[in-house]
Amino acid sequence: MAPTPHPLMTLTIDETNIARDVIIESHPGASIYFRINSLLEPAKAELTKFLDAEHSGQLTSSTPRPARLAEVKYDAIESGSKVPVYQEAWVDIRQKKVVKHELISTEFQASLTFPEFETFVEVCEKSPLFRKKIEEFKLPPGFEVVIEPWPYGGLDPADENRRFFQGLIFAADASKKNKDVNFYPYPLPLIPIMDWAKKEIVRIDELATGGNNDPLNSKTHAAGVLDHCQSADYVPELLEGGPRKDLKTLNVTQPDGPSFTVGDDQLIEWQKWRFRVSFNPREGAVIHDVHYDGRSVMYRLSFSEMTVPYADPRPPFHRKQAFDFGDGGLGHCANNLQLGCDCLGVIKYLDGVIVGSDGKGEKAPNVICIHEQDNGINWKHTNWRTGRAVVTRRRELVVQFIITLANYEYVFAYKFDQAGGIVVEARATGIVSVVNIDAGKTADWGNVVGPGVLAQNHQHSFCVRMDPAIDGHKNTVVYEESLPMQIDPATNPNGNRYEVRKTKISTSKGLDLDPLNGRVFKVQNLDKTNPISGRPVGYKIVPPVTQKLLAAPNSVQSNRALFAQQHVWVTKYQDQELYAAGKYTLQSRREVGGVADAVKRNDNTVQDDVVFWNVFTLTHNPRVEDWPVM
Amino acid sequence: MAPTPHPLMTLTIDETNIARDVIIESHPGASIYFRINSLLEPAKAELTKFLDAEHSGQLTSSTPRPARLAEVKYDAIESGSKVPVYQEAWVDIRQKKVVKHELISTEFQASLTFPEFETFVEVCEKSPLFRKKIEEFKLPPGFEVVIEPWPYGGLDPADENRRFFQGLIFAADASKKNKDVNFYPYPLPLIPIMDWAKKEIVRIDELATGGNNDPLNSKTHAAGVLDHCQSADYVPELLEGGPRKDLKTLNVTQPDGPSFTVGDDQLIEWQKWRFRVSFNPREGAVIHDVHYDGRSVMYRLSFSEMTVPYADPRPPFHRKQAFDFGDGGLGHCANNLQLGCDCLGVIKYLDGVIVGSDGKGEKAPNVICIHEQDNGINWKHTNWRTGRAVVTRRRELVVQFIITLANYEYVFAYKFDQAGGIVVEARATGIVSVVNIDAGKTADWGNVVGPGVLAQNHQHSFCVRMDPAIDGHKNTVVYEESLPMQIDPATNPNGNRYEVRKTKISTSKGLDLDPLNGRVFKVQNLDKTNPISGRPVGYKIVPPVTQKLLAAPNSVQSNRALFAQQHVWVTKYQDQELYAAGKYTLQSRREVGGVADAVKRNDNTVQDDVVFWNVFTLTHNPRVEDWPVM
Repeated sequence: MAPTPHPLMTLTIDETNIARDVIIESHPGASIYFRINSLLEPAKAELTKFLDAEHSGQLTSSTPRPARLAEVKYDAIESGSKVPVYQEAWVDIRQKKVVKHELISTEFQASLTFPEFETFVEVCEKSPLFRKKIEEFKLPPGFEVVIEPWPYGGLDPADENRRFFQGLIFAADASKKNKDVNFYPYPLPLIPIMDWAKKEIVRIDELATGGNNDPLNSKTHAAGVLDHCQSADYVPELLEGGPRKDLKTLNVTQPDGPSFTVGDDQLIEWQKWRFRVSFNPREGAVIHDVHYDGRSVMYRLSFSEMTVPYADPRPPFHRKQAFDFGDGGLGHCANNLQLGCDCLGVIKYLDGVIVGSDGKGEKAPNVICIHEQDNGINWKHTNWRTGRAVVTRRRELVVQFIITLANYEYVFAYKFDQAGGIVVEARATGIVSVVNIDAGKTADWGNVVGPGVLAQNHQHSFCVRMDPAIDGHKNTVVYEESLPMQIDPATNPNGNRYEVRKTKISTSKGLDLDPLNGRVFKVQNLDKTNPISGRPVGYKIVPPVTQKLLAAPNSVQSNRALFAQQHVWVTKYQDQELYAAGKYTLQSRREVGGVADAVKRNDNTVQDDVVFWNVFTLTHNPRVEDWPVM
Repeated sequence: MAPTPHPLMTLTIDETNIARDVIIESHPGASIYFRINSLLEPAKAELTKFLDAEHSGQLTSSTPRPARLAEVKYDAIESGSKVPVYQEAWVDIRQKKVVKHELISTEFQASLTFPEFETFVEVCEKSPLFRKKIEEFKLPPGFEVVIEPWPYGGLDPADENRRFFQGLIFAADASKKNKDVNFYPYPLPLIPIMDWAKKEIVRIDELATGGNNDPLNSKTHAAGVLDHCQSADYVPELLEGGPRKDLKTLNVTQPDGPSFTVGDDQLIEWQKWRFRVSFNPREGAVIHDVHYDGRSVMYRLSFSEMTVPYADPRPPFHRKQAFDFGDGGLGHCANNLQLGCDCLGVIKYLDGVIVGSDGKGEKAPNVICIHEQDNGINWKHTNWRTGRAVVTRRRELVVQFIITLANYEYVFAYKFDQAGGIVVEARATGIVSVVNIDAGKTADWGNVVGPGVLAQNHQHSFCVRMDPAIDGHKNTVVYEESLPMQIDPATNPNGNRYEVRKTKISTSKGLDLDPLNGRVFKVQNLDKTNPISGRPVGYKIVPPVTQKLLAAPNSVQSNRALFAQQHVWVTKYQDQELYAAGKYTLQSRREVGGVADAVKRNDNTVQDDVVFWNVFTLTHNPRVEDWPVM
């Protein structure tokens, strides 16, 4: 048997297949539809023992290792039944047995899978209801329908809790004879809804195409709805005159290779950093067990959730709200980074493992890329007396993954610097989500970015989960503000003083930024004093200043994204509590088991195993310049 | 005679010398101490006519050109007098005559010059008072005194309005036999004050070295005050073990050269951008007449002012407040960027011209550098149906200058992107300003960053001045906020809508950011509609979210920096109104002629010649990690 992998390593294809086989054997005669089959990270109490041994150089072949566990999520139709039942199991890979098994309440929907999306497209294409509606539009000659599957969004009060899929519909100009012709400039005003159990289009929502002066529920569209739309291509061969030709080559070369190493066991070492990277289908790349110069900084660092609510008030656009981690698992959508030339310099890639509905492990190649980059001057000082300038460049190590979710791309990166700092970055690119609008109209809930094309206002609320370990696992979160002080003869005689006020978070809670008071956060270890400053050792967290979720507090959009209603959440660690909006987000009406619930435990957070969640939100009121690719 | 330079070109050395000669001739027999001798930019009404002709291709040798004017600032001691009188004149270079002359009220202090700093150091070194004080400290063997000249700061109510200089005092360990040994780790607790007219140290302020539990005015220091200090070097040859050796080479090569051109007349063209760069001793690099794709964007873009107030409440630290543009002119302190290897790739340099006290023009070599850089992914989209990924890199054009102000360095950059965006960047590096603190003590107004070394809390308030010209000079500033809306059956039935509210600035005023409401600014041209969106054309300004000045509103620090008490100022253009804190900042007690005064005119700012001033402030509560170079 192969040597046991490091406990944090992504499940190998072999391990994945073992877990699959164990599940199939545990349901004799059943038909099984696999959804997820990936590593269940060890319980922290177990893993820290192992990591302590590793870091102290005590690791031997006889050191006890946490069990290798697969978390398998699947629907099973038992022999003699016709009803798929969603369930989740933990499989011990070594022992080849199920160690935990749970039937999931029908209150929750399993996260969706690519095969489901494929089914939706097929059902849609065959649907007479759908075809009839399309015919009514009288598409221009040579145009073909394109179906863009979406999660259904939050259920309406009147909706039955069934498993639904919806689709945004566009038309592609096939006469250009290019499979990558941009179809988004031709939005068709209808949304077909599929009932998953029935595999049938059960309803078609007709979309209004009006503007400010039309009632919200008007259906002003008619045949010829694409006649005022215009192509807007982005693939180079379809650009009139081609791409810009006046940009000269800029090469980055690293003749001696990179300065970092990537071990077979996903261990990355660079400068004074040492950490591990894993990949899972829900969160993408996750950073583990981060040390700097031999000192512990972070137990786990991950992107936890993102929700994208749209602000067009016309029904059914309130259901245009994706939870890109919880609904579908964005790890499933990770780009192969070797296609597309995304980075410069010497790049190392890591593969992931995903499964299809048969549960078999399959390599997801090059889903993580690791490279160094130069980011300008690091520091400089000139002694003006001697003219001697000393300058260093800022080198960064970037661990990056990129996902495609229909029209959108997200670029996620963890950037490590040479001075103990980590920058966590989320960038949005790709194509804005658009709907059809009548010629000459404008609408307050979006911006017309191309003829007949309204880009709806929307937000992206991200949550980054930081599980710090500042010189150990007992930490305390403090926020620090810089506040004006009155003139006072005893304490501030000339009025130039300001107060640096520190406030300790003593129990789990959600709280907001206060940018005009300079609020920053520190994770401190109050048991350890910095010998120079005489103050507790700590690690500063500077959350980006953004808005919060704007949807009305009593709206479904808001209720299912309680996490996005505060900038910061401080909780006490619990195994498996990784997801800001809870484990099940698909079609949710309210966030369950997310950070808003976690803080209600009112746990102690002083010198305890604290977790810091930071929510940041891009409010995107689109501009003409965002079109066709932003 | 040489052809007339472009009206925006920095004065040549020849032109500078002509202006000098004209001034000398206008004061027969006088002794003249030159301070500034540089281009006075043409009045806007004149220059725009010229630029309109240039852009419309109508420029001929007979096109009327604005006069080439030098602004000369100097002290003159007339024959028979002993009193230097500060005055300012405009010299017409072609006509070789003074066209305007003004004796400046003694209420204002001229900005300081390097020769004055040199005089201060000489006077200090010779001062018996200063030498006696130094002797009392009983410096360790081999240590030499280092004098760091500083502007005096805001006058105390009791101060006579004379011209003062102050100095921070350190000791250098000469036994290391390295002229670039770091002396900042050895701060001596005294500040000598020179009266410029007398050329004499008239007072020595003794500094407290205590901490939180000591009274603010205590003088707890004594002989042996450096005994608990420790070296902290940054030049490579003094680092124990040398610099890090585990970083491998990263080269940026541009085999075909850069994609931009720099004309002899300071015209820069790159991608769809076209603009000019000039250099002056007060503001450093200034950007003029910016066009994108043939459309006008900006008439002038500059860094206008910066103030750095320190928050240590103990006298006399309230006078530690530099105005780095107004007090001394940071253009004077610009680094030669060819020394110090500051950029990668193919770099072009521009020279400036400065003058000494003799008024003669002297080349300031390589004070501006221009280069391209790669800044990651620009945009990407993958068609998940075909797997085709299209990705572009983000190339930027950077116009940069770096200044050294004693311990600090500032890196200023204008970055132009490929999509019409400009990022204006100010970065602080170098060495934090420190004072001596007794062993074992801490202080709320700073952080102990090295043994015996307290880095005082402080702020840097920058102001960027934007003189927009969006498709012409008649523009309007609007701010836009994204605001939640209640659920309402008629307007927001499902609660997902939010309001994008636009507010027009109709008269000149100062205003603040409102980050949690997503307040951004747009300079719009209400006379021109974007044919796609149906909305006015405009250019969005996204000011960085920072604190404002924290000093008490009735403090001298605050009164002399009224500009730093709002994030944004909108004014109506006036010739020569370039400086946020007013023309004269040295030793000021109150801001005069700055933005706070300008807005009081209550000018119309709707479709008028508006100027947008953005103030952003770094609050720096230093960390141990900032030492010795941050």
